[in-house]
Parts: sequence; C-alpha cells; structure tokens
Amino acid sequence: MSKKGVLTVVSGFSGAGKGTLMKALLKKYDYELSISATTRSPREGEEHGREYFFLTREEFESMIETGKLIEWAEYVGNYYGTPKEYVEQRLNEGKDVILEIEIQGALKVREIFPDALLLFVTPPNITELKSRLVGRGTESMETIMKRLARASEEANFMEHYDYIIVNDDLDECVETTHQVIMNEHYKVSQNKNFIEAITAELKAMKEGAI
Amino acid sequence: MSKKGVLTVVSGFSGAGKGTLMKALLKKYDYELSISATTRSPREGEEHGREYFFLTREEFESMIETGKLIEWAEYVGNYYGTPKEYVEQRLNEGKDVILEIEIQGALKVREIFPDALLLFVTPPNITELKSRLVGRGTESMETIMKRLARASEEANFMEHYDYIIVNDDLDECVETTHQVIMNEHYKVSQNKNFIEAITAELKAMKEGAI
Repeated sequence: MSKKGVLTVVSGFSGAGKGTLMKALLKKYDYELSISATTRSPREGEEHGREYFFLTREEFESMIETGKLIEWAEYVGNYYGTPKEYVEQRLNEGKDVILEIEIQGALKVREIFPDALLLFVTPPNITELKSRLVGRGTESMETIMKRLARASEEANFMEHYDYIIVNDDLDECVETTHQVIMNEHYKVSQNKNFIEAITAELKAMKEGAI
Repeated sequence: MSKKGVLTVVSGFSGAGKGTLMKALLKKYDYELSISATTRSPREGEEHGREYFFLTREEFESMIETGKLIEWAEYVGNYYGTPKEYVEQRLNEGKDVILEIEIQGALKVREIFPDALLLFVTPPNITELKSRLVGRGTESMETIMKRLARASEEANFMEHYDYIIVNDDLDECVETTHQVIMNEHYKVSQNKNFIEAITAELKAMKEGAI
C-alpha cells in the first residue's frame, strides 16, 4: 500500500540473537540495513560504506554539529552514529530501512521519526539468554554476569517498544519480523496520502463534480 | 505469544465489502464474531444467539442501565448493541474476537478497550465504491448518492483507526486482515505479563537468586 519506506529499529538483549536474525532476514527479504558511521579503525576485511562509514574525529564531530546524525554515542573513545541522510534517502525511495541499535539510540530515533517501528528482540526466557551467553564460550563468567546486569537495566525500556520479537526458532522469528514490518505499510499513519485522496474524491462526488 | 485474545473492530464504507470479507475470514480462520443484541424481530431463519441476541425493549434498556453494553445505538425505532460480557469472556479464554460495527460504535469500543485493534475497510478508490453500490442493483441512485454522502462524513474518522484494509482482491484482503490481527499478539501492550516475567527473572539473577 503505502509507497514510503518503513523505518524499523531493532534492539534487544545482548545474546538475544539480533545479529543472526538480521543476517537471516536480509538474506531472505529485501531490506536496507542502515550503515553506521564510526571513528574506530576498519578491521581486516571491513569496507567503507559496507560495514561502516569510517570517519575521522573531525568529520564525525562536524556531522554532530550540523545535525546530520539521527543518534550518536561514544564507546571506549570512539564515536558511533547513524547518518540521517542515508536513512531519509532510502525511505523516500520506498525502501524499508532497518537500524540495529541499542536502546538509548532507539528512543532518539523515535523522537526524530515518530512513525518508526521499534522492535525488541528477546529470548523466550532468561535461563535461555544465560545459556546462550555461556554457550558462546568467548566470555568470562564475570563478563556474562555484567551483560545480564545490563539486560536487567534494559528490560525497563521494553515497554517503550512497539513489538516484542521472541527469538526461539530462528526461521519463525524471521517470518514474524518480516510480517510485523510488512503490516506497518497498512497503518493509518503510513497512509495519509491515500486517506486524503479518498476524502477528496468523496467530497468531489458529493458536490457533483464526478 | 500473548495468551489473551485480541479484540478487533472492523468498520468501513458501506459497499467496501465488509460482510464478504468477514464471511471469508471466519470460514478460513478461527475467530469469534461478536453477536449483537437487538430489539428488532428475528427474520426468517435467524436464531437467538446466532445472528443476534433478540431482546425485548425492557431487557435491552436494563442492559444499558446496568452498563452491560460496550456500545449501543437506536436505528429506526430498534436498539442494537454489543454485550460486554460475551466479548470479555471470549477474550479471557484467549479467543480473538471481531466486532463489525459502524464508526461511532468503534470509537466507543476504543474508550472501553484501549488495546482494541481498529481496522477500516475501504475499496481502492471511490469510483470502485460507486460501481459496487450500483452493481448491487438493489438500490435507487438516490439511495446510492446518500450512501456516498455518508461515506464522505465517515472518511473524516479514518484517521482514528489503526490500519487501512484495502479490499481489492478478496483473498489478499483476508490474508492481510488475518496477519494484522495475528501480529497484534506480539505488541508490547499485549505482552505485559511476559515483560514482567522477564524483568523479574533478570532481577532475581542479578541478585544471585538463580
């Protein structure tokens, strides 16, 4: 229905499987994953404009000052942010754009794009979350407990999201996510032009013009 | 996900094909169509508790006075209304309930059930609407023009609905309606219990209880 793209923001607990979900979703369906800007150095195999837009601190700070970022944050001495122009261009072309960002950033996106769709990805329960984090085998128990403590803070923001996406079975989760985004095209807020057209047509008919 | 049923209200222009859509939807999927109460006499073949709950004026007025109707209206000397208990029982049983009612009633439902899903059914354009009304062959041009004039008033309320369902191809329309209702189960507002459980689990883990 609506021709304008839907802006979807995906957040969730670390260990909820967001990355795997995004990969599977983008492989199967035609979404644009927004590319973040960062001041950190490219790792081996990373390309400018594919994994990230790699910028100097001066370039990044100039984007902050000129309001060209939807949201940004500084982690461990590096900036990370979402360029506004890239997102707006894709939406205007009718592409559905996905941002995978953490909660504070997601809430900032909602301020700038009130019609953004906010999805929160979670495992079916916390025992599952813990066993996924342990299962990775890459982190110490201390780090895992820190992640769970962080998740405990993050859980307080779930109610600010629109939908809860439970990642239990990956294929099912991909389909649910896709359907939730597709349905957004039928929302009244996405169809203001259609409503205006129908209203104008009815008015003209009532007045005998057609 | 959520165990509680979703309450869906379907409205739309006369001639938009709501009746056909409801029949096709209920034939294919497991929804409960809410049964209205009325004081009009049963027509041949109509059964109490199937097409309507047929009540006396005294019974109906007593339901109004005791707040047992979600919404009600009087048309051509007869009362029509939606019994609250029937809807609440089905929702608590986890059934998805559909009400097919006109706009004023739909807005009243939203007041009582803020989480109700409001769908507005419309043909793809007004030329199509007019030709459907003419195509029925059961109404005079004067009646058709009255219906279109009424549609023109109704169009002003489209923005109070959640989703616009364009009834162009019936099968497609059935699928869209079904998907939109199914997705409602993933909404944050439908999953407060799940969010509470996750939050409590995380808190307990942080405090070392599990």
